[in-house]
Amino acid sequence: METIGRLRWAIAEGYIPAGSTDGEDRRFRSHETACLLNANEEPAQVRITIYFKDREPVGPYRLSVAPRRTLHLRFDELTDPEPVPKDTDFASVIESDRPIVVQHTRLDSRKEALALMSTTAYAED
Amino acid sequence: METIGRLRWAIAEGYIPAGSTDGEDRRFRSHETACLLNANEEPAQVRITIYFKDREPVGPYRLSVAPRRTLHLRFDELTDPEPVPKDTDFASVIESDRPIVVQHTRLDSRKEALALMSTTAYAED
Amino acid sequence: METIGRLRWAIAEGYIPAGSTDGEDRRFRSHETACLLNANEEPAQVRITIYFKDREPVGPYRLSVAPRRTLHLRFDELTDPEPVPKDTDFASVIESDRPIVVQHTRLDSRKEALALMSTTAYAED
Amino acid sequence: METIGRLRWAIAEGYIPAGSTDGEDRRFRSHETACLLNANEEPAQVRITIYFKDREPVGPYRLSVAPRRTLHLRFDELTDPEPVPKDTDFASVIESDRPIVVQHTRLDSRKEALALMSTTAYAED
Repeated sequence: METIGRLRWAIAEGYIPAGSTDGEDRRFRSHETACLLNANEEPAQVRITIYFKDREPVGPYRLSVAPRRTLHLRFDELTDPEPVPKDTDFASVIESDRPIVVQHTRLDSRKEALALMSTTAYAED
Repeated sequence: METIGRLRWAIAEGYIPAGSTDGEDRRFRSHETACLLNANEEPAQVRITIYFKDREPVGPYRLSVAPRRTLHLRFDELTDPEPVPKDTDFASVIESDRPIVVQHTRLDSRKEALALMSTTAYAED
Repeated sequence: METIGRLRWAIAEGYIPAGSTDGEDRRFRSHETACLLNANEEPAQVRITIYFKDREPVGPYRLSVAPRRTLHLRFDELTDPEPVPKDTDFASVIESDRPIVVQHTRLDSRKEALALMSTTAYAED
Repeated sequence: METIGRLRWAIAEGYIPAGSTDGEDRRFRSHETACLLNANEEPAQVRITIYFKDREPVGPYRLSVAPRRTLHLRFDELTDPEPVPKDTDFASVIESDRPIVVQHTRLDSRKEALALMSTTAYAED
């Protein structure tokens, strides 16, 4: 299949709630996700920069998405160069050397009920 | 009416929760939907490819959307070539021979409360 | 201010839940909304066509959005040419004679907890 | 890093629920947010205009986003030229002198359960 996507993406919203009703279960732990789709026949080398309200950006976080694969990247599991702080406003820019598609999702489980939100990220070439 | 839409769409997020509080009622069973609008005067032939984290893509799933109709396709009801696994990260690329519009929605009923999310999918020609 | 927007929009998702925990209160009654922003100095004449799964489209629903105003149109309050059925999949195309911006929102109050979703609609000129 | 974004954005949906179950805690107070990302090396001067259903627009609300920073602006905390009324439909246009990215989010805590929604705003140059 022909590839699909763009090289540069941004998610202006970012916030990982510190609390979780079901924090023992990874699926129900409050989290933010950047879902990355690499429909190419070659790996996509991805660089993520995290922006904050009152300090310098952190990054790049580097990762590779294998050919014909999707990677649902949880921001609460990033560690290098440093973890993303909880209860803190952030935003992210995601740059790839090949076209990818990026969708942003949050699951908030601070209450017994789950809350979800999702949007296709902002794209540029 | 003049047609509206694009030929190639992608949904980078995909995840069908295995559990449902109200699983007996199809409306309340946790599900992912790709809402397809075909505003053309002819049928749209659609091919869906499902991408995973750690195995080769599956598809194409083939379907037709009748002229001047919308089809709200539930991923949990796809069977050919194979069902979409639950509790598994996936992504999808949707290709049509005529312009269509695609919107992605999830209903999560793992808890008594419902959680919803929706976004216009990513489009290209 | 210079105007902003596009002439043709589509919302591929549409579904008005029949039930509501708080149906007496209009704010909490399950609903779908098309939020229309007319930033022009003249009225925008808008035509909405509703598409279904298994019958011909209905419309146009005609309305006017005053200059420099927003109209949050609830699909459950449309009556002419006919009400939009509940518990029924639909989609909509929104055409305007001047540029407008369209955002889609659903509030689902079938359970005691509210569920919300929203997305910028798909735009074309 | 090269900058990313557009100069003019619109959010057609806007509604700050008057009630909150957890109103004492700023995090859980029902709110609307415009998340602004300024990836430039210079400050972005931003002007927001708020549109209503039945009265003239209010604004501009003026603010600056520092270089390489994100600002998650809560509409319920705007005061100049005037607060944004609660339980009232509105829409907003956001104009910047440098490219920015804008994402819209609402948290609704009128019920014990939280409801969330988010979307990348509509962009133009």
